[in-house]
Formats: sequence, C-alpha cells, structure tokens
Amino acid sequence: MHIIDKSDIIRWLPDRPKDSYKGSMGRVLCVGGNTHFGGAIILAASAAVYSGAGLTSVASDPINLHALHARLPEAMFIDYQDFTALEDAIHNADTVLLGPGLGRDAQAEAIFHCVLSAITTQKLVLDADALYFISQNRPNLPQTTVIATPHQGEWLRLTGLPLSESTVEQRQQATADLGMWVVLKSERTEIYLDDTVYQNLGGNPAMATGGMGDVLAGMLAGLLGQYSSPKETVLSGVFLHSYIADQLALNQYVTLPSQIVTEIPRVMRELLNAKQQF
Amino acid sequence: MHIIDKSDIIRWLPDRPKDSYKGSMGRVLCVGGNTHFGGAIILAASAAVYSGAGLTSVASDPINLHALHARLPEAMFIDYQDFTALEDAIHNADTVLLGPGLGRDAQAEAIFHCVLSAITTQKLVLDADALYFISQNRPNLPQTTVIATPHQGEWLRLTGLPLSESTVEQRQQATADLGMWVVLKSERTEIYLDDTVYQNLGGNPAMATGGMGDVLAGMLAGLLGQYSSPKETVLSGVFLHSYIADQLALNQYVTLPSQIVTEIPRVMRELLNAKQQF
Amino acid sequence: MHIIDKSDIIRWLPDRPKDSYKGSMGRVLCVGGNTHFGGAIILAASAAVYSGAGLTSVASDPINLHALHARLPEAMFIDYQDFTALEDAIHNADTVLLGPGLGRDAQAEAIFHCVLSAITTQKLVLDADALYFISQNRPNLPQTTVIATPHQGEWLRLTGLPLSESTVEQRQQATADLGMWVVLKSERTEIYLDDTVYQNLGGNPAMATGGMGDVLAGMLAGLLGQYSSPKETVLSGVFLHSYIADQLALNQYVTLPSQIVTEIPRVMRELLNAKQQF
Amino acid sequence: MHIIDKSDIIRWLPDRPKDSYKGSMGRVLCVGGNTHFGGAIILAASAAVYSGAGLTSVASDPINLHALHARLPEAMFIDYQDFTALEDAIHNADTVLLGPGLGRDAQAEAIFHCVLSAITTQKLVLDADALYFISQNRPNLPQTTVIATPHQGEWLRLTGLPLSESTVEQRQQATADLGMWVVLKSERTEIYLDDTVYQNLGGNPAMATGGMGDVLAGMLAGLLGQYSSPKETVLSGVFLHSYIADQLALNQYVTLPSQIVTEIPRVMRELLNAKQQF
Repeated sequence: MHIIDKSDIIRWLPDRPKDSYKGSMGRVLCVGGNTHFGGAIILAASAAVYSGAGLTSVASDPINLHALHARLPEAMFIDYQDFTALEDAIHNADTVLLGPGLGRDAQAEAIFHCVLSAITTQKLVLDADALYFISQNRPNLPQTTVIATPHQGEWLRLTGLPLSESTVEQRQQATADLGMWVVLKSERTEIYLDDTVYQNLGGNPAMATGGMGDVLAGMLAGLLGQYSSPKETVLSGVFLHSYIADQLALNQYVTLPSQIVTEIPRVMRELLNAKQQF
Repeated sequence: MHIIDKSDIIRWLPDRPKDSYKGSMGRVLCVGGNTHFGGAIILAASAAVYSGAGLTSVASDPINLHALHARLPEAMFIDYQDFTALEDAIHNADTVLLGPGLGRDAQAEAIFHCVLSAITTQKLVLDADALYFISQNRPNLPQTTVIATPHQGEWLRLTGLPLSESTVEQRQQATADLGMWVVLKSERTEIYLDDTVYQNLGGNPAMATGGMGDVLAGMLAGLLGQYSSPKETVLSGVFLHSYIADQLALNQYVTLPSQIVTEIPRVMRELLNAKQQF
Repeated sequence: MHIIDKSDIIRWLPDRPKDSYKGSMGRVLCVGGNTHFGGAIILAASAAVYSGAGLTSVASDPINLHALHARLPEAMFIDYQDFTALEDAIHNADTVLLGPGLGRDAQAEAIFHCVLSAITTQKLVLDADALYFISQNRPNLPQTTVIATPHQGEWLRLTGLPLSESTVEQRQQATADLGMWVVLKSERTEIYLDDTVYQNLGGNPAMATGGMGDVLAGMLAGLLGQYSSPKETVLSGVFLHSYIADQLALNQYVTLPSQIVTEIPRVMRELLNAKQQF
Repeated sequence: MHIIDKSDIIRWLPDRPKDSYKGSMGRVLCVGGNTHFGGAIILAASAAVYSGAGLTSVASDPINLHALHARLPEAMFIDYQDFTALEDAIHNADTVLLGPGLGRDAQAEAIFHCVLSAITTQKLVLDADALYFISQNRPNLPQTTVIATPHQGEWLRLTGLPLSESTVEQRQQATADLGMWVVLKSERTEIYLDDTVYQNLGGNPAMATGGMGDVLAGMLAGLLGQYSSPKETVLSGVFLHSYIADQLALNQYVTLPSQIVTEIPRVMRELLNAKQQF
C-alpha cells in the first residue's frame, strides 16, 4: 500500500494554461438534493466551483434553487424531475457527481437509473445514496471512469467486507469486482485504483460532522476536468480535503464542511506556489 | 451554590477520539420555527452544528427550508407537520431540542405533544414556547435527561416563583418538582441539577438581544452528544455561551446571536489547547 | 443652527444596565418591503438589530421572509397583509418604522393607514413611501414622537420648499406645521427638532447608493428603545450613520448599506470605550 | 492597437462630487436570469452595485427574487414577464444590461425584443444570450451607446470571423458593421471603439470559471452612469475586472466571480488614492 505523498500532489497540480477558458476547465453536473437533504448537493457543488471547475450545474429538487443561488450564484440549476433536461445536462458535462442528498425513495431510484443510462463518456463520481442503489440494484456501470466514495457503512453494504476484518488484498479484489475505483473513507482513507492502493495519512477527528463527505465528492468532481490523469486527480482530491481540514483544525474544534470549501482556492494556490519554486 | 469554574470547563472538554465519525458525535434534532419565528430554529441549529454535533436535522415549517440551507447547508430538513417523519426523526436522534420559534397555536401544541410522546431515550432540551406548553399542560415528561432553559418570565410561569423573591432552596425544590434540570437565565444564570446548583459569572448586557437564548439551547443540544456527562455538558454550554459573548463584547456594543455561533469552534479549540498544554 | 458634536454623541451613548434583557432594549417593528423592494426593509431591520434593538420584527410581503431569515435570523416575521396580526405587532412594539420599500399602490396605502391608526404610544419613524402618503393624504398623526427622514425630493413634496431656495427658519416652520421631527437628508443633513435645529457635518459622496436611507431609518428605530431621550437618539443615529460611512470610505470607493450595518456594533463600542475612558 | 494603461485608468476615475446622490450615480437595470441561470443576473447586479451604481434593479424570473435579496438587498426587483413593468423600468434607467442568464427560449426572445424596442436614450450593454439573439435576428439597434461583451464563441457567431484567423482591421470592420462597441474577451481582451482599438494586458487563467463574464458586464453597466465618457468607462471596466482578478490570483488557484465583486470598492478606492496623490 502506497502512502499519498505531498510532493506528488504538488507535482501533479496543473499549471492552468494561459489560454484557459471556462469550457476547458471541466463541465461538472452534480445530481442530488431532495426536499430533505438539499444542503448536501449545495455543499458538493460549492466544492466543485471552489476547486476550479469551469462550469458547474446542479440537478436537484426545485425547492433547492433558492438556497443554492443565495450561496453559490456561480452554479446553474436543473430540475432533476425533468429527465429530458437531465439527460441533456449529462451530455453537456464531462464529469457527473451522483448521490449527495439524493434520498432512497422511488423518485431517487428513477433519477439514479436515468443518470446511469445517460452516461456515455462522462467520468462519474458516486457518493451517498447512489451507493445505496448500487448495493441494492447492482446495475451495469457505464464504460468510463467510475469513482465511489463510500464511508465504512456504505462499503460494508457494497461488499459485505467489514473494514476491520478484511485484508487490503480482499478489499482490492472487492473493488475490482465492483468495477470502480473506491475511496474508502475512514480515519486513514484508502484509495483503491485498479492494481494500486494508496493510503492518506491526513485527516483528524474535527472532521467528524455531516456534509464532510459531500465536499470531498464535490472536490473530486471539480478536479477531474482540470487534471489529465484521473488517478492523480483522485489522490489529489483526497489529500487536499484532509490537508485543508488539518490546517483548519489548528484553530477549530470542529471543521465545518462549508469552511473547507472556502479554503480550497487558497490552499491550492499555496501548493502551486510550492511547485513553481522548484 | 457552586460557581462554574473555567478550569473545570477546560478539563471536561472532550478530546475527540481519533476514530470519531459523524454518527458518533451526536445526532441532534431541532424542532421549532413556525411561519413567524423561523430565525429562532435556524439560530439553534446553527449553534448545534458549530458546537460540533455530528448530524443536525431541523423539523420546522416548510417555509423555513430556504433560509436554513442558505445559511447552514450542513443541516437536514423535515416538515414538522408530517408527524410520521417527525417521529422517525426523533427515533434517529439522540438529542432533541424542542421550542425555539415553535409558537403557541394549536399546531404548535400538537407538535409539542407529538415530540413528548415519541421521545424514548433521547435527551431533551426544552426552550421558549415548549416551556409555555409545559406551564399550560403539565404533561408527563419522558424518563430521560430533560433540560429546560427558561428566562425569568418563563421561569415564573413554570413555577410561580419570582426570581427576586425566592431563595435558592425554593428554586431547587421547584426544579425537583418539575422533574427537569433548569438553566435559569438571568444576569447571573443559575443551573439547577438534581441536588447541586451552579452559578455562571460570565455574561454581559451586550447579550440582551433576541435569539441569544436560541443559541444557548442549540449549543446545549449540540454538546450533549459529545460529552459523556450530561451535567458537565450543561455547565460547559452555559459557560461557553457567555464566555464567547464576553470576548465579543470587548469590541461590540451588541453581540449578535449569529456572531456567537461563528465563534464557537474557535473558542472551543482555544480551550482544548489550554487543556492539552497541561 | 447647532452642529452635532462627537463629544455629545459619546456622552449620550447609553451604558447598558447590567440587568438588561431583550425586552428592555427596545421592541422594534419595521413595516415595508413589497414584492419589488424587499431589500429595503431587510436593510432597515438589519440596521435595527445591529444597532442593539432588543427585539426586531418585520411586517412585509410574505415573499420577503426567505431572504430576511437568510440574512438576519435574529428578526421575526409578520405578513403585513394580515391587519389583525399587524395591529397586534404594533401594540407589542415600542417603536415602529414605516415606509422602506412599502410602494405606493392601494395595498401600500391601506397598510399605511392601518399603521397610523393602530399607533398609540409607539414612537414612529416615517421614511420613503410613507412620506409619499403623508404628502398625498395629510392624515392626522398619532400623539407621540414622530420622526420623518426625507431626502430632498421627499422634503419638497412634503413642504413645497426647495432646500436651496429656503431659509432654515422657513424649514423650521414647515417642520412645525408637519407636526414631526425631520431629518432632512442632504450633503449636510439637517435635523429639525421642535425649536432646535442641528446640522451633521459627517458624510461623503461614497454614500450615494440605494438603500443608504433605509439603513439610517433602521438605525433610528433601533436606537429609540435604548436611549432615554428621543432627541439625543435622533442626533446620535444621524451622526453614527455618517461616521461609519466616513470610516468605510477611507478604503472603499462606494460604501454599501449592508456594510454600514455590519460596522454598527463595532463603532458603537469604540465610542463607548471613549466614554468610559473619561 | 493601443494598450490600456493603468495611469489612464487612474486619471479617468471620477472624483464623486460632494453633492452626489443615488439618483446622480447611475440608474442601472439588469435584465436576465431565467429558472436555470438566475445566478448570472445576481452576479451582474452585484457587480453593478459594488461598482458604485446609484440605483440597481433586476428584471428576472420571479424565482430569483429570494436569492437576489439574500445576497444583495441593495437591489430592486421586477418580474421580467410583466412587459409593462419592464418598459417602465427601462424608461427609469439610464443604463440597461441585457443578457446574463436570459436563456434562448421563446420567452427570452420576447424579452429581448421588448427591451430593444423600449430603449430610447439608455446606454445598452449586451452580453451572453442577448448576443445569441443579435446573431439570430440581426435586429435594428437603438440609436444610443451599445456595448457588446462576447467571448470568442459568441464573437464567431456574431461576425463569422475566427479570432485566430482574422486581422485587427477585419475585426474592426466587423465591429463597425455590427454598429456596437465590442469587448472581445480572450486571454488578451480587445476593445473595439469606433475607430480605435485597445488591448488589455491584464487577466490570468485563474479567471476561467463560469460567471466571470457576468461580473464584467455588470461592472460596465455600473460604471457607465458614473463616468462622463462611455469610452473611458468601457476601458476602465475591462481594466478593473482583470486587475482585481490578478490581485486575487496571487493567493487563489481559482478566482471566483463573487470574490471579484467584493473587491471592487476597495480597489477603486486604491486607485482613487493614487489619483489624489498626484
């Protein structure tokens, strides 16, 4: 098992080309947020925007439009009950995040299937309730990069393997069987990428608060359109998320997900400065 | 009557275990906020989240969803008119806060009774209009930790004892008769815990503004899932609330409740640093 | 004509008594904000809260509830179309602000008359469209402290006296005829109080932006419940408003009304420190 | 081709006259923001207000009122489906911005034509979807100052000239044929003003994110009512937008449009200080 190394993260961080424009920095679609859990998709979309995604859209219950725009006018909005619009939005995206705040009812399940069917070449990040439906339905996955970000309970439901009673090799095999890359969140998050496994040494207990995972998923989606290598993206997103939280925890008993979001551009610039000083 | 001592507060402050996760840091449900007083439950829920609660939900009038998520995407939302959902939410919580902005009409009373009936082992914080209904209805209380946070007017209605014309012993007896612990808010807040009484020396007149009590109630609810001792929690919440306000008042003529909320994580970390330096 | 003197403002600034509570720091009701101009009453109410008012309510079009609570959870809300609730709210207040964003249609006029009829002993601040209706209808005013805050155009409509072509004596007489105190806003705002006239030397052109007057009106309403002398309140509010703006303008080309609001508690504390150092 | 020079920008920056009032600092109407792209018009209006516009109104879909007021209580609101109100608002404005978040459906097209027909002497800024309708419909333009702010794709649609395969002279001719001034956004933005062409050397790839153009358009609209020369306004707006972004990019990997907005008053003041030190 490899350890994620800060010097690699710095080295991998893209220098934005001079002729960058919003269309070349990633088109992200975040799908989720029902009438109970709208905050989850707002946090995820905020993380995508603050990670530098060029264009970020949210497909959600219409009730969540007001709070989304009040917090994040940079994002665009789609009613996720309108499947024609949802499919169009997927085809216009190059990365789709599915799951935060989606819920588990029949409407959520229909949206889940709509998104999975509509994906062609788009990279796909699956989190939260999307992982529930994966566990329940075992659908065919699109032939593209698929990344899942389960916490331990979601991992157990997906694979039947308790984290504490399984080996890395078993988890690696289970991930291969799932046909996805897996970010297995825990005190020491593990990342299963085809035949390599990484561990992230960052993170701290001040992060134990609701919404933290939504921000990680949104960061991964936001970064995927900016990096050339998806593997480097996943490792970078996991590292940055905990690295920011560790900085915040020096001065905060609890680190709020929305505070992580705000710090992303500053910390990424700090690492870019480190890169450019070499 | 004991005086709350800062060194105790520091000593009692939990070191979060390394394997903390959102589910182990307290599941708080805040019930209140009608069409007039939505801000009260938003402030209370914000205080719970910023105090470090792992998962915070708000059960309120649907009209308050937008502003809640615009301010606090970390919280989840339930329509409090849906009693099945409300009962489910109570059973999924380990602490329930009832009262801020609840109102006093028939709907509020029905919600009050629904919550009291559904509570099993959940710790319960009663504030504001919940205390009005306690005074009016004298219902049986659940057999769990129940904490009331009345201001002087609410205390008078609950017990018939004017603060200025009663003794500590009388108030202690009245609290025992109520079957709750009581945080009796005043210039020098008194805390009645079974057979011990504490006084809080902090606080200042810049705190005299609407919403201040909602934040205290939310802090208590947010802390209850993180401390092992409920008594230490109540004393710590009362202390922290006034301690933050006293810091703010050095630079502010009035200390806004929403400003108290923002400062909670920083001040708790400051005290944790003090603890760890021993 | 007297000049408002900073040393008087400092001297008049109340030391909050140790036993202050929200009910003793002023109960303010802000009435206004139709479907076009909701921001005006939000700014006014924010100014009242940040000036230290104990309890602040907003009576407005229901469409404005969401943004109000998203910005200012400290405020309570009333639908101003419900005249019974509006009259109750007036009777529960000790200061009423009428006008910001009220509009000039039939509904606005009905609300205007409802408020004027319901006032008994409440201090009354009239601004913006409330002054339009005063000009149009010349209603009988309640027998209480009434303060109008016209800009030059509103003043002209009220009195027929162009500011540049009238004498202080004429304006003083016109004010007496109106039966109100008048804060006549201009580059050098004049305050007409019964038989004395004051001029405010503060203020700057960076303040020339919409919403600035709403904040002044809200500050006056917020301060009226905290000072013992209404005259000192009016002079203090006018001074503080421009004093804060002059500080902001050192670093800002335009001073936003919402930025003035945020600075109020800090600047009032700065002046209180100056007072306490004597 | 001239280069925009910082010393000119400083020289042109207006000293606000002492008797400035909100009505003399520009009355801006921002038209756009459908049910998907409300954030765009919120960003544009925010940029107008923070640039110092005296009075700013937004004509948009009613769904966007809540988030607008939650972010920007300084702005007024009009339902853009009410063409009578829209025409009145245009006649009360001296600058109109049309396009951000307008969309391209039949309703958007009807609004586009309504605005173009209602303009008399108002300066007009055309951005985003308004440029799409210009391309499609080639309508007669009002006989007033008209400024378009296309990105490269919009420019291509407007003129058929690829930026990389055309000469400045060809673009100058195409602009003259369009009958507008053109701010052609790219890595090195070019400004076509009748017979002179300017290039802006500021800007950086951290600006490549959605909403950045909305802020530029809003700044131009906000500044037009404050400067005496429209040409100097356009050059100043383009310069300031990138100048602020370059400052932010020193500490941020991506510069959010909403962060640009917040910095406008400070940076304009910084340049005014530089002017006043001469």
